[in-house]
Amino acid sequence: MKAVQYRRVGQAPEVVRIPKPVPGPGQVLLKVTAAGVCHSDIAVMSLPAEQLRFPLPLTLGHEGVGVVAELGDGVSTVAVGDSVAVYGPWGCGLCAECAVGKENYCLRAAELELFPPGLGAPGAIAEYLLVDDPRHLVPIGDLDPVTTAPLTDAGLTPYHAVKRALPKLVPGSTAVVIGAGGLGHVAIQLLRVLSPARVIALDVSEDKLALARSVGAHDAIRSDDAAAGRVRELTGGRGAEAVFDFVGAAPTVTIAAACSGIETELVIVGIGGGSVPVGFGTLPYEVAVTAPYWGSRGELIEVLDLAHAGAVSVHVETYPIDDAPTAYQHLHDGKINGRAVILPH
Amino acid sequence: MKAVQYRRVGQAPEVVRIPKPVPGPGQVLLKVTAAGVCHSDIAVMSLPAEQLRFPLPLTLGHEGVGVVAELGDGVSTVAVGDSVAVYGPWGCGLCAECAVGKENYCLRAAELELFPPGLGAPGAIAEYLLVDDPRHLVPIGDLDPVTTAPLTDAGLTPYHAVKRALPKLVPGSTAVVIGAGGLGHVAIQLLRVLSPARVIALDVSEDKLALARSVGAHDAIRSDDAAAGRVRELTGGRGAEAVFDFVGAAPTVTIAAACSGIETELVIVGIGGGSVPVGFGTLPYEVAVTAPYWGSRGELIEVLDLAHAGAVSVHVETYPIDDAPTAYQHLHDGKINGRAVILPH
Amino acid sequence: MKAVQYRRVGQAPEVVRIPKPVPGPGQVLLKVTAAGVCHSDIAVMSLPAEQLRFPLPLTLGHEGVGVVAELGDGVSTVAVGDSVAVYGPWGCGLCAECAVGKENYCLRAAELELFPPGLGAPGAIAEYLLVDDPRHLVPIGDLDPVTTAPLTDAGLTPYHAVKRALPKLVPGSTAVVIGAGGLGHVAIQLLRVLSPARVIALDVSEDKLALARSVGAHDAIRSDDAAAGRVRELTGGRGAEAVFDFVGAAPTVTIAAACSGIETELVIVGIGGGSVPVGFGTLPYEVAVTAPYWGSRGELIEVLDLAHAGAVSVHVETYPIDDAPTAYQHLHDGKINGRAVILPH
Amino acid sequence: MKAVQYRRVGQAPEVVRIPKPVPGPGQVLLKVTAAGVCHSDIAVMSLPAEQLRFPLPLTLGHEGVGVVAELGDGVSTVAVGDSVAVYGPWGCGLCAECAVGKENYCLRAAELELFPPGLGAPGAIAEYLLVDDPRHLVPIGDLDPVTTAPLTDAGLTPYHAVKRALPKLVPGSTAVVIGAGGLGHVAIQLLRVLSPARVIALDVSEDKLALARSVGAHDAIRSDDAAAGRVRELTGGRGAEAVFDFVGAAPTVTIAAACSGIETELVIVGIGGGSVPVGFGTLPYEVAVTAPYWGSRGELIEVLDLAHAGAVSVHVETYPIDDAPTAYQHLHDGKINGRAVILPH
Repeated sequence: MKAVQYRRVGQAPEVVRIPKPVPGPGQVLLKVTAAGVCHSDIAVMSLPAEQLRFPLPLTLGHEGVGVVAELGDGVSTVAVGDSVAVYGPWGCGLCAECAVGKENYCLRAAELELFPPGLGAPGAIAEYLLVDDPRHLVPIGDLDPVTTAPLTDAGLTPYHAVKRALPKLVPGSTAVVIGAGGLGHVAIQLLRVLSPARVIALDVSEDKLALARSVGAHDAIRSDDAAAGRVRELTGGRGAEAVFDFVGAAPTVTIAAACSGIETELVIVGIGGGSVPVGFGTLPYEVAVTAPYWGSRGELIEVLDLAHAGAVSVHVETYPIDDAPTAYQHLHDGKINGRAVILPH
Repeated sequence: MKAVQYRRVGQAPEVVRIPKPVPGPGQVLLKVTAAGVCHSDIAVMSLPAEQLRFPLPLTLGHEGVGVVAELGDGVSTVAVGDSVAVYGPWGCGLCAECAVGKENYCLRAAELELFPPGLGAPGAIAEYLLVDDPRHLVPIGDLDPVTTAPLTDAGLTPYHAVKRALPKLVPGSTAVVIGAGGLGHVAIQLLRVLSPARVIALDVSEDKLALARSVGAHDAIRSDDAAAGRVRELTGGRGAEAVFDFVGAAPTVTIAAACSGIETELVIVGIGGGSVPVGFGTLPYEVAVTAPYWGSRGELIEVLDLAHAGAVSVHVETYPIDDAPTAYQHLHDGKINGRAVILPH
Repeated sequence: MKAVQYRRVGQAPEVVRIPKPVPGPGQVLLKVTAAGVCHSDIAVMSLPAEQLRFPLPLTLGHEGVGVVAELGDGVSTVAVGDSVAVYGPWGCGLCAECAVGKENYCLRAAELELFPPGLGAPGAIAEYLLVDDPRHLVPIGDLDPVTTAPLTDAGLTPYHAVKRALPKLVPGSTAVVIGAGGLGHVAIQLLRVLSPARVIALDVSEDKLALARSVGAHDAIRSDDAAAGRVRELTGGRGAEAVFDFVGAAPTVTIAAACSGIETELVIVGIGGGSVPVGFGTLPYEVAVTAPYWGSRGELIEVLDLAHAGAVSVHVETYPIDDAPTAYQHLHDGKINGRAVILPH
Repeated sequence: MKAVQYRRVGQAPEVVRIPKPVPGPGQVLLKVTAAGVCHSDIAVMSLPAEQLRFPLPLTLGHEGVGVVAELGDGVSTVAVGDSVAVYGPWGCGLCAECAVGKENYCLRAAELELFPPGLGAPGAIAEYLLVDDPRHLVPIGDLDPVTTAPLTDAGLTPYHAVKRALPKLVPGSTAVVIGAGGLGHVAIQLLRVLSPARVIALDVSEDKLALARSVGAHDAIRSDDAAAGRVRELTGGRGAEAVFDFVGAAPTVTIAAACSGIETELVIVGIGGGSVPVGFGTLPYEVAVTAPYWGSRGELIEVLDLAHAGAVSVHVETYPIDDAPTAYQHLHDGKINGRAVILPH
């Protein structure tokens, strides 16, 4: 079968032919219908050899949707022909975190060398994907695979971040979203459907500010030195009750901190290398700063329920599998509008 | 192998010889080291034929601890020789409840005809037990199997009930435990280690009141017409913030209601057929009345962690497997002190 | 000044002239701009003499909005001329419930004989209202007093009920509202703005079903013997995750119970005398049944913030103070569409 | 009356004679029975003139207990002769935070120039204390004023910090307390009574490690470069689920971060000037870092309920009011064992 692999440190991904996998006992083989391309893949491909925690070649793709093609022995909870989304952060299934579906926080993943597909295990940008256990599948019914694939990360990650902050987002509150790109434009939609908060989007690009408005932001503001002051003005001096930074670079986390008020939930999702110093007096009282990772199995079910209800949608550009390397190049060059999705068939 | 089976409606359980099971793909075979005997088994054996939801014969026992004896194909997360406890309420593993480990509330259990071992599926009072999936096992290390087996139900069920009420059990609060038997005497211990609440135990038996005191109840009161008045007195007129009824019969739920105050959490665990009418004016404001069932996978891990810490212990009487029918007779006759545990080997 | 009083048990309310009150130290005098008429008033006026907990005459009206007219000594947190809404359930201000703003659940109200205005203390259907403490006032800025007055009860009461259930109302969930009248039609709006749940309204009147649809219900169904079956059908057999009964009569609570599924939050708000029996097996597992009362100070602030955001509105009919007795008659006869509001000036 | 005042920037506090205050409408005059001395006072007295936000002289003392001596007009909720503790962080009483009793986070305190007694308003280290509103008083019944006074800050502050982390402190979890001094030795007691967590105390002083063990720490470890490694060892590599830093200096916050694991609650209470940088990859996933301040009215009631139950006690050294300057000197020199309390009469 065809697969898109990262084969050598520092080189671009390639389309290759590899054997079609065979599901062992308890495993499931999917015929991939759509697979998302993500900045995290580029981050992995930028690592020096000594920081790679798994061997190459690596089939890329951690956002996958497919149709069940073959069942390993003993699998009965899904059936051949089911259309399913893949829950990516595969854990041990047994530890205290996995027992509540938070496999993204599996306590034994490092010890057992468990990796998500496309981030260590063979990924979804291929004609077929081997899934280790049916618990990592969520049936999607008649949802469109193309717009659904990105929801497994670009939907699930902001969903988890927003859900954390919901208790703060009471009537009269404000949420700030920094970065209205792939994850941020989903976060805005999630905030609108899950909370009564006023949503203020910040971005450096006018296009993304326009996108932010079109998906529901009440205000969309240029992300510059004046942005935090403007947020404070719009909130009567109080600051926002929740701030989500989907960039996470030094300039954006500084703005994020400056938008915060007493007891603000400040969630840093972006992997831009910035950090906020937290100590007595560095921020308003009891601002809670976190940097979460992906989401839980239960949360993915909820995200897909939102998709069924038509409450969230991802802007996508599609590429055939042979053009996947181009898609990565476009993403790297900032030319993707929304999310790039590969169609392997 | 030997197994204790309920074979015909209305007849006593028998020790029989049946084939030792063979684990299929994804399954695990346990050599049972200890299995608890429970009132629910007697309740099942009291049902008329038309209310039984599964065919007979049924191997009894839903509280099991064993040693992993054989692994089905594809199982790698437990190893032969591991000492494990069995999580009993087996669900589909995929629905929104199962995805967060609440298999006791599996949304598809009825549709898929999934039953716990000993309550529909072949149970633990046998030399060997077939477990459908390793996710239903929790390693117990060097815990004593005999005192651990009952924790899978007589520990987990009150744990879930108590955990529900914890937000109400702040300093200065009071918890009432009605029925200081198998589950109740564990609930008292749980309340003491998990909360700062004053614990008042109610029972009709002096022996059980003594047991209640010995496991940590601050007060132990005869459960009669004056009991609720005494609780109100001890709480300065306020009533208890949480009430747990492990009997659940008409007289006890009446007392439970009368012990309640504004916003009390009233949890009916016992299956004694009683019920509390809830409507405007029938109880103090916003008393929350529930009747939960068993507990989640994550909660079982927490219960076993309490056992590791020495914070909870179950009084047990042991019987060899050939005497299991006698154990059921004793339980039926109210002669068991604490919990009866069968030793199959 | 003019005031509308309930003067003798069993008689209709009358417009009378009484002295304008003078604020003592720590008190505030409001010039009332709007005051709501509520079914609870009629319930009070239906009580036999021996069940009345306060002396007559009683100035009616527990939903009040006014302008600060005079300040008692020592009051500095509001100013003459401020437009304010009155938080009605006046508590002691010091007990553990009042300390978190839940004065509706004041632990000492009975002992201290504290009553809400219009339900024991002199009420808001008068030209002036004496408020015991400025903490019972929430500034409303430029909100319309007429549509705001009902929010202090007909908004706050369903808000509190809905807020209790929010953790259950995740994506994919369903909320049932029984009774689309004064409180119910607000509840529907609150559910739409606060949660992603599908909202199903039930009522016996086609007019109210039309109102339910117009304020955002996804489905509006005749509340009859088939209603619960229809809800179960619409939820794929699961039942609703939350059920709010704003009627609370025997037939509606029966439907409410029948719409419930595992872990449903069932909230009985209506004072129609019905009750749901809760015990093991009477309902699906862990359905939580409660009958709350009014709401907290913090919740009133949140309701008014929703009004500022234009997210909730009450249908009102207005009456001059001289016609207040007529308004009560209309309400009694079921002729009020939405909520009746008295304009004292 | 005698009062201990900070009169000029940079000078030591002095005992002076000032007029006994007279309670205005809505106010309460206390005869002070005990008043605590705190490091925060020293921090205030170390500020340069331009950073002081209030004028001098300042009567010191924000931890106060007294007997009600006189009531201003309109006060009826406390009575002359009541023994009461003072809730120190006085807010406006009306904003969204104050409405739920979180006056420590009053949204209008800065704008209205509201200060706690002893930290801007006249404080408790005097023969009499004027309290602005009876809501700032909690009756203490027969509790000893001397050991109760410190609970209003040295008890309330760690209580609030611990309460925040309780959802993480399930069975099997670990809490680390850094700094076993005035607040830390109370935090250890609180953790033991409120949670089933294993408690590990860290300090640089052997005396304080001994104190930590005596008040309930399971382990007490020297706070040095090896400490975090030792914590990780004791937790099987997982790290602690909650870390409380009562020092808050650069070296301790570094240890605090190194003790953290996935989803740890890291609470910085100490005002030692250290801070933890939070961004993607700087800490394990979703560690939540906060720096809270004092606590709420409801929490103070709960702390005092723990004192009534004998579940928490503060080590104190007492001084007559004339020796208050000496007490401050001793505290500054690190010579106070536990907490210093001034007895004004």
